[in-house]
Amino acid sequence: MSQLIIIGAGPGGYKTALHAAQHGLQVTIFEQEHVGGTCLNVGCIPTKTFVHSVSFEEAIERQPQVVEQLRSGIETLLTHPNITLVRGKASFVDAHTVRVSDETFTADNIIIATGSDSKLIPVPGIESPNVVDSTGLLNLDTLPKRLCIIGAGVIGMEFASVFNRFGAEVTVIEFLKECLPALDSDIAKRLRKQMEKEGITFNLQCGVKQIADGQVFFENKKGQTDSVAADIILVATGRKPRTEGLNLEALGITLQRNGAIPVDEHYEVKKIRNEENKKGDAPAPSNSLNFTFSNSPHLYAIGDVNGRQMLAHAAEMQGLHVVNRILGIEDHIRFDVMPAAIFTTPEAACVGPSEDQLKEQGTPYECHKSFYRANGKALAMNETEGMVKLCTEPGEGRILSAHIFGAHAADLVQEVTAYITLGATLRQLRETVHIHPTLSEVLIEVN
Amino acid sequence: MSQLIIIGAGPGGYKTALHAAQHGLQVTIFEQEHVGGTCLNVGCIPTKTFVHSVSFEEAIERQPQVVEQLRSGIETLLTHPNITLVRGKASFVDAHTVRVSDETFTADNIIIATGSDSKLIPVPGIESPNVVDSTGLLNLDTLPKRLCIIGAGVIGMEFASVFNRFGAEVTVIEFLKECLPALDSDIAKRLRKQMEKEGITFNLQCGVKQIADGQVFFENKKGQTDSVAADIILVATGRKPRTEGLNLEALGITLQRNGAIPVDEHYEVKKIRNEENKKGDAPAPSNSLNFTFSNSPHLYAIGDVNGRQMLAHAAEMQGLHVVNRILGIEDHIRFDVMPAAIFTTPEAACVGPSEDQLKEQGTPYECHKSFYRANGKALAMNETEGMVKLCTEPGEGRILSAHIFGAHAADLVQEVTAYITLGATLRQLRETVHIHPTLSEVLIEVN
Repeated sequence: MSQLIIIGAGPGGYKTALHAAQHGLQVTIFEQEHVGGTCLNVGCIPTKTFVHSVSFEEAIERQPQVVEQLRSGIETLLTHPNITLVRGKASFVDAHTVRVSDETFTADNIIIATGSDSKLIPVPGIESPNVVDSTGLLNLDTLPKRLCIIGAGVIGMEFASVFNRFGAEVTVIEFLKECLPALDSDIAKRLRKQMEKEGITFNLQCGVKQIADGQVFFENKKGQTDSVAADIILVATGRKPRTEGLNLEALGITLQRNGAIPVDEHYEVKKIRNEENKKGDAPAPSNSLNFTFSNSPHLYAIGDVNGRQMLAHAAEMQGLHVVNRILGIEDHIRFDVMPAAIFTTPEAACVGPSEDQLKEQGTPYECHKSFYRANGKALAMNETEGMVKLCTEPGEGRILSAHIFGAHAADLVQEVTAYITLGATLRQLRETVHIHPTLSEVLIEVN
Repeated sequence: MSQLIIIGAGPGGYKTALHAAQHGLQVTIFEQEHVGGTCLNVGCIPTKTFVHSVSFEEAIERQPQVVEQLRSGIETLLTHPNITLVRGKASFVDAHTVRVSDETFTADNIIIATGSDSKLIPVPGIESPNVVDSTGLLNLDTLPKRLCIIGAGVIGMEFASVFNRFGAEVTVIEFLKECLPALDSDIAKRLRKQMEKEGITFNLQCGVKQIADGQVFFENKKGQTDSVAADIILVATGRKPRTEGLNLEALGITLQRNGAIPVDEHYEVKKIRNEENKKGDAPAPSNSLNFTFSNSPHLYAIGDVNGRQMLAHAAEMQGLHVVNRILGIEDHIRFDVMPAAIFTTPEAACVGPSEDQLKEQGTPYECHKSFYRANGKALAMNETEGMVKLCTEPGEGRILSAHIFGAHAADLVQEVTAYITLGATLRQLRETVHIHPTLSEVLIEVN
């Protein structure tokens, strides 16, 4: 009997396994495919390799090398004496027991870290051979002449940017009013306009109706039917938690409407009382065992599978927190301070609520802006397109958020993440010495 | 009578003028050349334009455009109603009065921000026509085939990197044991070795003896005479405070041995008592007026001219602090947390004492390292050369310093500067969420 079972060796699973092992826990980790999960094998890392390649040909040549190098690095890390890596698909027998093939494994604590799958939209023609998800797009042999992307979220926008740069003719169709809904709408709009200047066509407020004969038919914002002809169609309409085959029903767990495993603020799996189920819209599982119907203090779900913050680094930090709790270590991880980056050209990044969200919440705030075109390093780099929006408490008080587009936006947001996490004010940011000439000076130059 | 006179409109002077003006002070600022000073016109900005150009031809075409755009931006800022910009060379009449041409100006407070000049070494042949300082190198019309650089400090290293990349054959001669003495010696050595791999020749522990017939003669570390043939010779052996013509003698100020104006911790100019002068090696100025021989609470020197931290951003922050004191505003600027960057390829940056300095001081510390080659974003970027060294108080306590070489080193150091300024520990850094995949993850991956 090990002390900790982890199901899934993606960024959430393998990092958590290492942290636990380094603190002396005996860990068994299950992986049905490759270690590194979606992120390393068919997600962030291959995409970023595309972003940092000058041509499609370079990208498809480098991608497997980069992935293989990182994957073998993780495999080496997982040879830690306290870790047992088991290949295969895990399924629950009971709340302390997991079966893989014919073998059963038990543990004091179990962390579900199975990640997510691409979510396709239910429109006629979605099964056409030229329709791909992000995995399919990364595995193309030749650059499509015309690429149509359904969905202007992070995945859609990153691929739009990179394939446009490689020379494909890119059209994006998005249901919402603006791209990247988590990003400040002002920043998102400027970024999108910059991408339009670089040759990408955006159809916003458009609902896809059908895919047929190499064309995507959609209703535009005037209610008229329009279409885009494409050689390849990328469906980038989000991801859904991956729970199939886990046999969660045996544990009395009822999934949320979005397919996510319900968890509390410590990522402990929540069970829903039968009575509650009767009232709610989710049917009570027919084969649910009669558990205590409270939280399961030994059963956790981290990462995409809990549907909270579907980001690799969120999964890692959630896993870190779970292991700390198992070990009785107090931590101060701020899950409300969750930065994210979008590696378009120029890149974008954010941390904390957007100005739109602050308005909606009725939170008092002040907005401070600055622009890359006044920054010496940006001019020297010939990267003058960019803008910073910092929101603070009134009176230049504590920093609440930063939304940025422009060169090195991810790095700048990371710096602001430090200030927010530590509760610093705009004045403290301004009194911190910033190297001249660097892009980071856009932060102290906010009005 | 204005409330503040500033002599010199470099980054120290013009930023200080703006800060003072925005807080309601009436400012007169003097500039004998172009606004923006050495940094903008012949220093950081043109150099960074070279760094971010793909060829020498692009660099010399873009350089004047970038400089002109930023210069006109500053000129616009200096049209602030509280600021009067006076063109000309200022000279002291007395401690509240400055003369420019035939006009005199008085003020309650005076800030000297005159910057520095290149320092040439006293060797025979230094006046040869093919010997240039950084300004001369930036003004070349054609790329030299062979460039010899004397001095492996920041200026020498940045030019070595960029001219090597442009295709020149670059040889560096340095008197000390290693390049970049302010940088951790381990980091500096790795950076230098990487630059050697890229084709630059380094002659360390070598003293230049003579320049003659297009050759630089030097004594190598074995005491033998050696020589390098070069078309252009860059002398990058440091900079010296610029005080000529200020008539500081009239104020009873005795310069330090390095030519710097002596200041206290608030950048107030210090006067030295005549008795002290008699004991010291600096002769008492013959025309010194009989002042109180204490500090001058209305007379300040910021930036390179005080010889403290010869960095543009140090000048800016010193000026900010001086204006705050004039206004009676308390601030918490940490002048001991002064980051710096070197824009070589790969770049390097540091904040806080190097491990070598901590050892020398006898400060208890722990050293934590990580390497770019294990970082997913670095691999995707194909930028795997790099290393981070963080020093902390023992027990993973407060962060003391970061010395880094590798892609985006300046941005990473800026993030660490935030933690150090706010007194954060390594644990707090690790508990701050870092976006995956970004280079910033090298910080949380330190051992």
